Amino acid sequence: MNFNITPIGIIHSSLKKLEDCPRQESHDAPQATIEIFAGYLEGIKDIKPGMEFILLTWLDRADRTVLATTPRGNPEAGLTGVFSTRSPARPNPIGIHQVKVTAIRDKNKMQVSALEVLDQTPLIDIKPVLKK
Amino acid sequence: MNFNITPIGIIHSSLKKLEDCPRQESHDAPQATIEIFAGYLEGIKDIKPGMEFILLTWLDRADRTVLATTPRGNPEAGLTGVFSTRSPARPNPIGIHQVKVTAIRDKNKMQVSALEVLDQTPLIDIKPVLKK
Repeated sequence: MNFNITPIGIIHSSLKKLEDCPRQESHDAPQATIEIFAGYLEGIKDIKPGMEFILLTWLDRADRTVLATTPRGNPEAGLTGVFSTRSPARPNPIGIHQVKVTAIRDKNKMQVSALEVLDQTPLIDIKPVLKK
Repeated sequence: MNFNITPIGIIHSSLKKLEDCPRQESHDAPQATIEIFAGYLEGIKDIKPGMEFILLTWLDRADRTVLATTPRGNPEAGLTGVFSTRSPARPNPIGIHQVKVTAIRDKNKMQVSALEVLDQTPLIDIKPVLKK
């Protein structure tokens, strides 16, 4: 039982490698630009600057064999089951990021607030923010 | 550019078909049981009853060709780009659900609060709740 994910876009970021990433996403992460691929533009037609969304990304450089890890911000916690952590290393390396859209250019490029993902990370979905 | 998703578990629910689903997840959705597959048990070792998590599911019965849809709860909205909706029909049909774990049985079955997904839906990830 396997399923196939097809990216709908790609992230352009100044974060080129893991060492560039800030520890706390909400504090120091840079703005990023999301390029939506041509076949998916109808899906973003109602997205406007000022709106908040949840982005799902495919963390394509993550180690998918990891089941327990030491949380980055809390090394004293010891080896913790990955499903209790936000570690990119996990069986299905999907990232969840809440962002605000700050601008839209050329109909296919969305600038978003603080986003901690590496340059060239594939985008796989965009959703409204969770209500509860 | 494509990626392969491998389920880590499966949802057992009394919701057998789409017509059984309540309109507002937080109001009327039933409890559900999540069975984690044997190879992934180390990943849930730190999950305890009372904790809240975000579940990612693969909505395997969704139409992946849809790019605009009429939101279920707001038919007057007209045809809306799917990335502004929570419709299961979307290019990569990933569901996001915030739940509370109410019990764990046999080390591999987690009972969770209100969850609006169909019986036998694959589970693909579990994450801590979003902080912001």
